[in-house]
Amino acid sequence: MPPPLLKRTLYTGTFVSTPTPTGLEILDNHALAVDAHGVITHRAALPPGGAATGYDDVVGWVGRNWGWDGGFEWVRPGGEGRGWWFPGFVDTHIHASQYPNVGIFGKTTLLDWLNTYTFPIESSLSSLTKARRVYSACVSRTLSHGTTTASYYATKHVASTNLLADVCLEKGQRAFIGRVCMDNDLNPDYLRDESPEQAVEDTKATIAHIDSIDPTHALITPIITPRFVPSCSSPLLSGLGALAKESALPIQTHLSENTSEIALVRRQFPAHDSYSHVYDTHGLLTPRTVLAHCVHLSLEERMLLKERKSKVSHCPVSNTSISSGLCPVRELLDDGIEVGLGTDVSGGYSSSILVAAREAAMVSRTLAALTVEETRSDEKEGQRGAEASDDVAAKHSTSAKDRKKLGVEECLYLATRGGAKCLGLEGKVGGFEVGMQWDAQLVELDAVDGEGGADDGGEGNGGPVELWGMETWGEKVAKWLFCGDDRNTKKVFVGGRLVHERR
Amino acid sequence: MPPPLLKRTLYTGTFVSTPTPTGLEILDNHALAVDAHGVITHRAALPPGGAATGYDDVVGWVGRNWGWDGGFEWVRPGGEGRGWWFPGFVDTHIHASQYPNVGIFGKTTLLDWLNTYTFPIESSLSSLTKARRVYSACVSRTLSHGTTTASYYATKHVASTNLLADVCLEKGQRAFIGRVCMDNDLNPDYLRDESPEQAVEDTKATIAHIDSIDPTHALITPIITPRFVPSCSSPLLSGLGALAKESALPIQTHLSENTSEIALVRRQFPAHDSYSHVYDTHGLLTPRTVLAHCVHLSLEERMLLKERKSKVSHCPVSNTSISSGLCPVRELLDDGIEVGLGTDVSGGYSSSILVAAREAAMVSRTLAALTVEETRSDEKEGQRGAEASDDVAAKHSTSAKDRKKLGVEECLYLATRGGAKCLGLEGKVGGFEVGMQWDAQLVELDAVDGEGGADDGGEGNGGPVELWGMETWGEKVAKWLFCGDDRNTKKVFVGGRLVHERR
Repeated sequence: MPPPLLKRTLYTGTFVSTPTPTGLEILDNHALAVDAHGVITHRAALPPGGAATGYDDVVGWVGRNWGWDGGFEWVRPGGEGRGWWFPGFVDTHIHASQYPNVGIFGKTTLLDWLNTYTFPIESSLSSLTKARRVYSACVSRTLSHGTTTASYYATKHVASTNLLADVCLEKGQRAFIGRVCMDNDLNPDYLRDESPEQAVEDTKATIAHIDSIDPTHALITPIITPRFVPSCSSPLLSGLGALAKESALPIQTHLSENTSEIALVRRQFPAHDSYSHVYDTHGLLTPRTVLAHCVHLSLEERMLLKERKSKVSHCPVSNTSISSGLCPVRELLDDGIEVGLGTDVSGGYSSSILVAAREAAMVSRTLAALTVEETRSDEKEGQRGAEASDDVAAKHSTSAKDRKKLGVEECLYLATRGGAKCLGLEGKVGGFEVGMQWDAQLVELDAVDGEGGADDGGEGNGGPVELWGMETWGEKVAKWLFCGDDRNTKKVFVGGRLVHERR
Repeated sequence: MPPPLLKRTLYTGTFVSTPTPTGLEILDNHALAVDAHGVITHRAALPPGGAATGYDDVVGWVGRNWGWDGGFEWVRPGGEGRGWWFPGFVDTHIHASQYPNVGIFGKTTLLDWLNTYTFPIESSLSSLTKARRVYSACVSRTLSHGTTTASYYATKHVASTNLLADVCLEKGQRAFIGRVCMDNDLNPDYLRDESPEQAVEDTKATIAHIDSIDPTHALITPIITPRFVPSCSSPLLSGLGALAKESALPIQTHLSENTSEIALVRRQFPAHDSYSHVYDTHGLLTPRTVLAHCVHLSLEERMLLKERKSKVSHCPVSNTSISSGLCPVRELLDDGIEVGLGTDVSGGYSSSILVAAREAAMVSRTLAALTVEETRSDEKEGQRGAEASDDVAAKHSTSAKDRKKLGVEECLYLATRGGAKCLGLEGKVGGFEVGMQWDAQLVELDAVDGEGGADDGGEGNGGPVELWGMETWGEKVAKWLFCGDDRNTKKVFVGGRLVHERR
C-alpha cells in the first residue's frame, strides 16, 4: 500500500550538503518545500533578515512566491546559528544481526572473529522473539544517529529476515534487506544453507515478502546477499548471479577485507585470477553491486571494478578494529570508483555513520603519515620553519601526503551522496535538490555561555560540541564531524516522515 | 589551607580497576570506606547476597567488621549489574588554552597547525575574561569525562595561567599547571617570551601563586613547561633545567611528534645526537619529566629515556588527526618506559581520555595490520580456514602482529594507573588500594528491554551503550571503552569530593 499522505511542510534555516566531494554547500536563510509524498518541490533564498521571523511573514512569503494559500507545517532549527539541515546518512554496510555485539571483538581478526563472536549471535536469530528485540533496537538506534538509508545483512533465516523488513517499514527507515547466503563447509554446521538451491529459494522467499509489504520498493528493497566467497560454493554464487540478472535487484557482499581471507579464496578458486574475478565470473560484479571493504585490491581488480561500475562500501572503523588494514580510498576515488561508507556493525564498534565518516578522515591521515614524499618535502618544510606556514600549506595542497587526506566535506559526501550512488539512489536521496526525497536530519550544536558554562545552565551536561561564537560554518561542520554524536541529531525525516525526535 | 573535611563514606558495589597492564580486577559485591580526608581506609568483600541490601544491614555489617557506629554516607551504583566504580582518568597532556579549537584542524600537520590555529587562540588568552570562560569550560568538560587528574599547558601569560590553577582548585580537579615557555624567533612576535630570564621569572611567578593557594600541593602542582625544543633557546632550556633541579618540580614538554619538527631540531642543535639529547644536556630529562608523543624515537633515544626514567604521554587521537604518525607503544612498554595517555587538546579533537584509550587500541591495531609476520602465519591461518579458530587464536597470542595490539585492560591501565605513574602519583591515585585517594568515577550502562527499546522507554534516546544481558564483566567494560561516552559517567570524585554529577 502507498504510504499515507503527509502535510505539506516548509523547512527554513540553513541547509548544508555536499553536492560534490570537494565542497560544502551552505544555503543560509533558505526555504524548502516538501509535498505530501515527501518530495522536495521548491527551494529558494529568503529575503535577508526577513520572511522567516514569524508565521504571518512566512505565510505571506510563500503566498507571494510559491502561490501557497496557507495549510502547511513550518519547521526550523532552534538556536540562532547553531543548527542546520543536513541530508540523512546512508549506511552501505551493516549487519543488523550482529548489533548486540558492538564493542566486543577482543584481539581477533576476521576469520577467528567470525567463529568466536559472529556466527553464534547470528544463529540465535532463528528465534523471532530475539530477532524482534535485536532488529527493533538496531533500527531505532541507527535512526537516532541520522541514518535514513541502511543496507542490511540479516541472517540465513527467512522469517527473521522478513521481520527486519517489517521493522524498517514500521519505523520508517529506507532499507535494503539481505537474506544471507552461506552454503559451504567453512560455515559452522549450525549456520549453513542446506544446498545452493535452497539458499536461492530462501532468498526468493524474502524477495516475495518484501514485494508483498512494499510492492513498489518505495522504502524497502530486497538485496541479493552472498556472505562472501569463502562461505559460498560456486553453484550458489552462480545461482545468485542468475537471480540478480533476472530480478535486476542489487547485490551486496564482502571483498578483500583481510589477507588471510584472500589467501583462502586463492586456494578455493585456484583457477581464478583474483578474488574480484570470482565474483565477476559468477555474474555478481554489476553496477548494482556494493562490495564492502576492498582493503587489499590489486590494480587489476580495481580496473575490473571500475569497468563493471561496481561500488565500494568503505568501513574504516571495522577495518581498524579487527586489524584488516587501511583502505586506500583516495586511489579508489582517483580510479573513478564510487565509494560510500559502512558502519559494518559489529566488526565496527559503532552504528553511527558520523563515527564512520570521522574514522574515514583518521584512516586517510594515517595513510598520509605513512606516505614518503619523493621530493623530501618534509625536510624542506622544516628548513623554512614554522613561520612559512602559508608556503607550507600551499605546497602541501599538492603533495602526495596531503592528497591522501580526505577532507571534512569529502567524508560527509561519502556519508550521504556517495552512499546514495552506491545504492542506486542518486538523485533520490543524499542532497537537497528539488525532486529529491526529504531524507534529512536536523543538527544542532550547543554553545558556551559567557562564563564558560554549557548553555543549558549545567556543568558539562550539555551536548558534546560547544560553539564559542567565532566559528565559520565550515568550522561548525568540522566540530560536528569530529566531536558530535547522536545528541546533536534532533530530528530525522525519511521521505518527509518524522522518524526520530530527540526530546 | 587544608581542604574541608568530608563525611566518612561507604561505597559498595562492583569495583573495576587495572592493578597491572594485563588484567582487569573485578571486585564484585565489595565495600570500600573513604575517610574525611578522601583516603581509602578499608576494603572488603561483602557476604554473598547479603549486607548491601538495606541501610540497616549495612550499618550492622560495618559495625561488626570495621567497628563503625553509624554516621556515614552510603553510595552505590544504580541498575543491577550495569554499573561499577572505576578509577578516575589521568590526562597526562592537555592544552587547556586550545580547548575552544577542538575539532578544527583542517588538513594541517604540526608546524602549520601551530601558526594557523594554535598560536592565535593562545594569544587571545591574555584576556582574563576570555581565559576564565575557556578554562571553566575545559575543566567542567574534562571532569564530566571522568578526568580526575590533568596535566595542563596554559599559555605564556602568568595571570591567566594562575587563573587556570584557581579554576581547577575551585572545581576540585587534581591538576598540574604549566606556564608555557617559548622565547625564540620561531614563535610569532605576538606570543613570545621577552628573554630566557623573563620566561624563568614568569614560571616562578606561577609557582609562587600555586604555593599560595595550595601550599602542600594537595590538589594543584606547578609543572615546568618548555613548549618544545623548536620554540626555545638553549639559555631558556638551561634555565628551566636548573629551576627543575632546585625546585624538584615535574617537567612537561613535547618530543619527536612529527618528522618536520625533528628535522628542525637537528638544524637548531646540530651538535647534539638527537632531539632527546637536547633535553638531556639541558637537565630536562628527569624521572619527573613527561614527554608528549614520542612517535619517531630512535632506539638510542628510547634507551636514553629509559635510563633517565622519563615518562611518555601517548596522544593517539592527536597523532592521527594531524598525521604525525603511529606511536609504537608496545616497544616503549617492552623497553620498560612508563606510558600514560593524553588527549592533547586541540591537536586531538576530544577532551575525553576514554576516547584516547579507544584510539590507543585502534592505533595499536593499525600497527598490527602493518606488521609482516616472519613466519607467514597469515598464509597458514588461511590454509587452516575459519574452523580452526582456537588454533588461530592460540598462535596469534604470540605472533608479532598480535603483540602490537593493546588490549582493553591495557588501554584502561594507561588511562589510569599508567598516567598516575607518569605524574609521580603512583600509590596515590589510579586504583582502589587502601591508602589511596578516592579519585573515582561511577560508570553506568543502559540496557535494552525485552522489546528492543531503551530502558528509559524512549526510542534511541538512551545512553550510547546497551547491555543485552549476556555480557561478561570483561565484555561490559569493552563495550564501555569502545561505545561509551560522558553519558555513562554518572558521578566523579576527587580526593573524596563529588566534583561532577550527571542529572
